[in-house]
Amino acid sequence: MFSVTVRDHMMIAHSFRGEVFGPAQRLHGATFVVDATFRREALDADNVVVDIGRAAEQLGAVLGELNYRNLDDDPAFRDTNTTTEALAQAVADRLAARVHAGDLGEAARGLAGITVTLRESHVAWASYERDL
Amino acid sequence: MFSVTVRDHMMIAHSFRGEVFGPAQRLHGATFVVDATFRREALDADNVVVDIGRAAEQLGAVLGELNYRNLDDDPAFRDTNTTTEALAQAVADRLAARVHAGDLGEAARGLAGITVTLRESHVAWASYERDL
Amino acid sequence: MFSVTVRDHMMIAHSFRGEVFGPAQRLHGATFVVDATFRREALDADNVVVDIGRAAEQLGAVLGELNYRNLDDDPAFRDTNTTTEALAQAVADRLAARVHAGDLGEAARGLAGITVTLRESHVAWASYERDL
Amino acid sequence: MFSVTVRDHMMIAHSFRGEVFGPAQRLHGATFVVDATFRREALDADNVVVDIGRAAEQLGAVLGELNYRNLDDDPAFRDTNTTTEALAQAVADRLAARVHAGDLGEAARGLAGITVTLRESHVAWASYERDL
Amino acid sequence: MFSVTVRDHMMIAHSFRGEVFGPAQRLHGATFVVDATFRREALDADNVVVDIGRAAEQLGAVLGELNYRNLDDDPAFRDTNTTTEALAQAVADRLAARVHAGDLGEAARGLAGITVTLRESHVAWASYERDL
Amino acid sequence: MFSVTVRDHMMIAHSFRGEVFGPAQRLHGATFVVDATFRREALDADNVVVDIGRAAEQLGAVLGELNYRNLDDDPAFRDTNTTTEALAQAVADRLAARVHAGDLGEAARGLAGITVTLRESHVAWASYERDL
Repeated sequence: MFSVTVRDHMMIAHSFRGEVFGPAQRLHGATFVVDATFRREALDADNVVVDIGRAAEQLGAVLGELNYRNLDDDPAFRDTNTTTEALAQAVADRLAARVHAGDLGEAARGLAGITVTLRESHVAWASYERDL
Repeated sequence: MFSVTVRDHMMIAHSFRGEVFGPAQRLHGATFVVDATFRREALDADNVVVDIGRAAEQLGAVLGELNYRNLDDDPAFRDTNTTTEALAQAVADRLAARVHAGDLGEAARGLAGITVTLRESHVAWASYERDL
Repeated sequence: MFSVTVRDHMMIAHSFRGEVFGPAQRLHGATFVVDATFRREALDADNVVVDIGRAAEQLGAVLGELNYRNLDDDPAFRDTNTTTEALAQAVADRLAARVHAGDLGEAARGLAGITVTLRESHVAWASYERDL
Repeated sequence: MFSVTVRDHMMIAHSFRGEVFGPAQRLHGATFVVDATFRREALDADNVVVDIGRAAEQLGAVLGELNYRNLDDDPAFRDTNTTTEALAQAVADRLAARVHAGDLGEAARGLAGITVTLRESHVAWASYERDL
Repeated sequence: MFSVTVRDHMMIAHSFRGEVFGPAQRLHGATFVVDATFRREALDADNVVVDIGRAAEQLGAVLGELNYRNLDDDPAFRDTNTTTEALAQAVADRLAARVHAGDLGEAARGLAGITVTLRESHVAWASYERDL
Repeated sequence: MFSVTVRDHMMIAHSFRGEVFGPAQRLHGATFVVDATFRREALDADNVVVDIGRAAEQLGAVLGELNYRNLDDDPAFRDTNTTTEALAQAVADRLAARVHAGDLGEAARGLAGITVTLRESHVAWASYERDL
């Protein structure tokens, strides 16, 4: 199995609902350093998993929908705790939709899966892994 | 599949038995930067894999049993080479016991597995992965 | 010259005023991974720059005043852009006040200076350096 | 499942064929920081996955065949795009051949698989994973 | 003293002249992860050292002149060993010229100095520091 | 001012004397990831600060005197707390002696200074800086 990963980041504000979150129930924020990993069984005709330039560009586009925003005001996350793990899923699902729409190129339709990791600090991160 | 990882560290002394270990047969030591990853299929009602505060607290408690000690004197490791891979298993198993005891909360009983990685330097690390 | 550095982090929300900031004029947030460096010419009687445990504890206390908050609502930063560089200065000055108050121990009065670095992402950071 | 990883690096020149590569069609170069991960179900008699010294030595030997070279001139890669993912496979396959030849020791014959990750920058990397 | 640092990278081919370089006399290559640090005594009216967006953009422009190239063919480096330290100086000097030309904005004329660090691997890097 | 840095590591056991050290008064250990930085005003005839190969070799030799040992038994540190800052000085002074003895080459006699940083974990490190 092969994989390629590209890294980018976003800086958002949000708050959590639920006593388990303690002080994180207050409005605060985070930088998420985001790693998007694309997997496939065999390389394509160019000897790549995916065009890394387009992968980086599409990851940037997905993060651009969230970057420099207060996620508490984003209708996509109404009544949802935008935890690191939930945002990892949101980014992975949006990338998957772009793969299916052909935004990463025709060859990218051969991808087997995506894993997205969001690093919220030097001591904590979360991942979501899905098939394509 | 979702996962959440928390990072902490411990600083221990130990020595190894066996010619394969060369100079590491002498009493020496290591800082292990420890990453504990918790996995589950679906997020809980709070939209998390595990309460990250309790995860960090329990990892700290497990490492506290080993930290600032000479593992050659620890009865738990009598007649055992406390290699990086063996310590990764020890930390994972102790975390698993705490999950089963309810120390990470009731929702943590839905966890699927744990992976523990011990980084012994910038050029070497070991992992142990197990189900829960 | 000797130095000792301890690392911690904080997660805050804020917004900037000024066209130069572009989309960062919207309410957003950041994780700041914070490195506090303490400098002195000669080591103290214990052979340290500063008691590293107290240094970490005091850095945690300073960050605790800011962590999990919307800095736009903090009177300390009224009419101030809480840029990474400005926050580096705020953290350094608050640490300096604690050194002068004796919170890092009597020996810490021999410190020569403090540098605080705030890493806002994997591609950008800012520092402020001052004497004590 | 246990794993052990060792890290080394190589510095090579190469160029790519195919419009998808844009400016990387020109002769350029890369530092690849290479992580070789060895997996096995149970530890050997010494409580290790593999003799880490021999693993590092063999990884160094494999990288030494490629290091400080222009891969466009290497017959092993004639008519092949030496992408990061393709080189990850080449390194993994060469390590596998050395495991099978006994170069990592007799106990290494119990290894289950190898994963090789090549980091080409702070924002992009590729991996190849195979059984043994 | 305040500073702000932005990170980018370039991937180049080159060779060295001189026996001291050993196998690096052959045509090979490197990824340089480049950190450009801008220093000034006091923050400007926006509370920044420099507009970080423009700083990143100008660093990208300077690296774009070198990226994906064989530096042995670049007239700017004729008869010059393009060592990591020499390239750090070249990048710093080109950034300085852009500061003086006003490319980083009028406020950037108040900058005191620039340091450029080029990381060639996980175990080696070089810096050049200059006034403005 | 130019600088070049090389990184290596050592794994040692030791204990501290003094109540300020708390549990670190027990025999424990550490991995120190060691960065040795060499500074000079102008590059030498080969366009380098120092022959990086020899710098790495000499750093390895200095660390080899300490590696895989219990520093409590080393006569060089009798009645001395081998704190991170004290070990940074020991490494820097030993490297300086090697520079003066010509072990880093004749050109290295033009070096202006050395800084040694010992990273004891992902959240703490210490440095010692000296002239040559």
